Amino acid sequence: MKKVNFFKKKLIKISILFPKEKFENDVSNFNIKPLEEAGFGDLTFFDSIKYKNLALKTKASYCLTKDRIKQFLPSKTKCIIVENVLFELAKLLKKIYPYADIDYPDLSLKKPAKNKFNKVKFGNNVLLGKNVKVGKNSIIGSNSIIEQNVSIGDNCIIGSNVIIKNTIMGKNVVIQDNCKIGLKGFGFIPLKDKNFKFPHIGSVLINDEVEIASGCTIDRGSVGNTIIGKNTYLDNQVHVAHNVKIGSNCMIAGQVGFAGSSIIGNNVLIGGQAGVSGHLNVGDNVKIGGGSGVVKNIKDNHVVMGYPAIPLKEFIKNNKIKNDE
Amino acid sequence: MKKVNFFKKKLIKISILFPKEKFENDVSNFNIKPLEEAGFGDLTFFDSIKYKNLALKTKASYCLTKDRIKQFLPSKTKCIIVENVLFELAKLLKKIYPYADIDYPDLSLKKPAKNKFNKVKFGNNVLLGKNVKVGKNSIIGSNSIIEQNVSIGDNCIIGSNVIIKNTIMGKNVVIQDNCKIGLKGFGFIPLKDKNFKFPHIGSVLINDEVEIASGCTIDRGSVGNTIIGKNTYLDNQVHVAHNVKIGSNCMIAGQVGFAGSSIIGNNVLIGGQAGVSGHLNVGDNVKIGGGSGVVKNIKDNHVVMGYPAIPLKEFIKNNKIKNDE
Amino acid sequence: MKKVNFFKKKLIKISILFPKEKFENDVSNFNIKPLEEAGFGDLTFFDSIKYKNLALKTKASYCLTKDRIKQFLPSKTKCIIVENVLFELAKLLKKIYPYADIDYPDLSLKKPAKNKFNKVKFGNNVLLGKNVKVGKNSIIGSNSIIEQNVSIGDNCIIGSNVIIKNTIMGKNVVIQDNCKIGLKGFGFIPLKDKNFKFPHIGSVLINDEVEIASGCTIDRGSVGNTIIGKNTYLDNQVHVAHNVKIGSNCMIAGQVGFAGSSIIGNNVLIGGQAGVSGHLNVGDNVKIGGGSGVVKNIKDNHVVMGYPAIPLKEFIKNNKIKNDE
Repeated sequence: MKKVNFFKKKLIKISILFPKEKFENDVSNFNIKPLEEAGFGDLTFFDSIKYKNLALKTKASYCLTKDRIKQFLPSKTKCIIVENVLFELAKLLKKIYPYADIDYPDLSLKKPAKNKFNKVKFGNNVLLGKNVKVGKNSIIGSNSIIEQNVSIGDNCIIGSNVIIKNTIMGKNVVIQDNCKIGLKGFGFIPLKDKNFKFPHIGSVLINDEVEIASGCTIDRGSVGNTIIGKNTYLDNQVHVAHNVKIGSNCMIAGQVGFAGSSIIGNNVLIGGQAGVSGHLNVGDNVKIGGGSGVVKNIKDNHVVMGYPAIPLKEFIKNNKIKNDE
Repeated sequence: MKKVNFFKKKLIKISILFPKEKFENDVSNFNIKPLEEAGFGDLTFFDSIKYKNLALKTKASYCLTKDRIKQFLPSKTKCIIVENVLFELAKLLKKIYPYADIDYPDLSLKKPAKNKFNKVKFGNNVLLGKNVKVGKNSIIGSNSIIEQNVSIGDNCIIGSNVIIKNTIMGKNVVIQDNCKIGLKGFGFIPLKDKNFKFPHIGSVLINDEVEIASGCTIDRGSVGNTIIGKNTYLDNQVHVAHNVKIGSNCMIAGQVGFAGSSIIGNNVLIGGQAGVSGHLNVGDNVKIGGGSGVVKNIKDNHVVMGYPAIPLKEFIKNNKIKNDE
Repeated sequence: MKKVNFFKKKLIKISILFPKEKFENDVSNFNIKPLEEAGFGDLTFFDSIKYKNLALKTKASYCLTKDRIKQFLPSKTKCIIVENVLFELAKLLKKIYPYADIDYPDLSLKKPAKNKFNKVKFGNNVLLGKNVKVGKNSIIGSNSIIEQNVSIGDNCIIGSNVIIKNTIMGKNVVIQDNCKIGLKGFGFIPLKDKNFKFPHIGSVLINDEVEIASGCTIDRGSVGNTIIGKNTYLDNQVHVAHNVKIGSNCMIAGQVGFAGSSIIGNNVLIGGQAGVSGHLNVGDNVKIGGGSGVVKNIKDNHVVMGYPAIPLKEFIKNNKIKNDE
């Protein structure tokens, strides 16, 4: 999937952004990325020992971090020491991406230009932003809104009343009516009487063969991306928070919720109304029973159920569940 | 409620669909129905011993089934033995109903024709498919989409941003803003890298006096129908999966979820955020506490709460719940 | 926030409404309000000993109540004794406010009049009812519907596909795509075969700096109002039922549900998918873990988790939750 810049960026010299620091090169065109995605020239952030292993291997040139954990960063990475990493990151993002902290409605929307889309069918009142791409044999239902720079692959079926922004979508994807994809997630620095809204500059990447049922909300990544893996199916009213990465061939039943930044493996089955807390790892081939509350990591091939989720066998034993009477 | 064919059907001779079988009459106009609804000339399917009692009484002429359970079918029913009943059924449905496996947006939508609807009021930008029926004194709010062949009774109040497809609705029904009714449910045969989408050819039947609050999703039946009984009320954000049948005079609070094919009796009360697993029977006059997870059948008149749901008295005792401090 | 009458009112003399009662002044322009909001000349209702303390202090001139609890009302308040307070109240409201028992779509909607809105930006196909107010520098996204008499403050960002009715909103409020605000809640008197719909004449008050994420439903108050306090943030798919009052500086994560009439303090944090039962009090600075089911009042500064919710320490001990393995 090709890279797209969804958010307007201001070029500001790094010496102006961090006046107390000294920089060898006073760059302004650096990108801000998560530890594992940052490369040479990029700025990253490291705020919790939990991400020690990613810090050790980062290739970022600059890193916002705390004095207490800076030693895990490579020597090539210049540390910018702050008190509150996430607050400083939020303020930095707001300076560089002034329009990423709120979902400002796209005011460039227009009806699809004739002759521009090859073999694409549009319902009534479809609205497209600038530079939207839609692959051949795709259909977009009535009243749907595809905001600027979104890319939709071939043979995709998008329902009615759908809103898609900040998203790159593969081919053969089905999105049912009323889904909202690529919106800003629930991210802010709590401040009395006026929270500081955390700009979210990430995207949503939806891989080939994905199916997303009606009324789902999939928020874009904060600094990295939110990702739905190939051939993964989501049922109605599923909530996927920012930065969540779901593997391929997963089946996620209705009303499941994922808090921010959790990583779900491949071939994972999740029953209806289950919830997965934030910043967790769920392994491959995991099965999670309906209604479960997952509050810690789950290793590959485990089957869990309960609130909090425990191995299914234990859950059945604890609750003396028998077959139907 | 009259029968309507929502999905385009291909007529294929049964000898071509099942070339290894021998048939007395090489019919092509048979219908595919669940065990209990199939009549003479219809094809049905029987894949689990759980439905033994329905199998014993079926009137179907043909039945897809497994060798291991075929003996429960009446001698008049011709068994078509397969390895994987649901997969063969899905492939059969895809051949006969090629457009029922995805919610292809209705591209026949138009503004309501003047003079066609007697005493019906429409908001702005309402879109109707071909052959939509709306009874007198009904109102349909702005931006709502009623797809082809949907039938709405007299005195119905449909809100704004509502999408209704594959649905037959009685009279005096209220549907609040943003409901999505009649969409394809979560049904597919899991296959690595490319699931096989199960065509859903059923409808949603909504009886008189029903009220459905904002943001609900009610999926259509797979082979049979999804049914909401008379005078049953659903609160906001309820999810009703395919084939669920809810009786009359029920009260279903906000964010409740029903997995596929469960049958709920009459006068059932369900508290907010409760979940009912698939293929269960919940009796008449049952009360289910908020947040409960129902994982087995519940007999008439029982009161349950908990995850998994247990008799309310036990739940209170186990949890030592006292009155407000 | 200024008072607005969202519902058409019929003036009926109180002697006609209650022919068996004697009244000193045969008024017809009285208002119907909750115990704590009713003033001189108003009619209120008192149906449960739970609200004894509010009854003792009410300033209402008239009160629908039961013989068994009437002694808690001040002597200046004229008691109107009935068998079923809520049913009589519902019938009274239906006579005075005949159009508040169903969300009749606003059929007065029009595109925004040019020159009428100062420094307001509108997306495509925005529809406004009569007498809608939108403050300067606000933006309203495409396909959104703002029904009659709604008031939106300055610098508000309203997304696309949003529906707002019966609502007064302060400044700097963000409402993401697809929210439904001010709809009628889940209120009715259960009657076999035809429930009696309870007219809901309250509003939704949204204070300054509030942010409400995608797909939330916030129902209006029944007789009083539903209130979201200053700088409170709601994540995606939250359900706020009628009469709920949420304090300021709260953080409510995704898919949380509030049943009717609960009162939530300030600085409250609620994790994803938690549910709060109806008619409860949750104190200031309370933290409620994700997935919890709150079934009784919670005092200030408490931290709870579980279903039913118990002190977090107990929950951890009971469930032997350890740090990540």
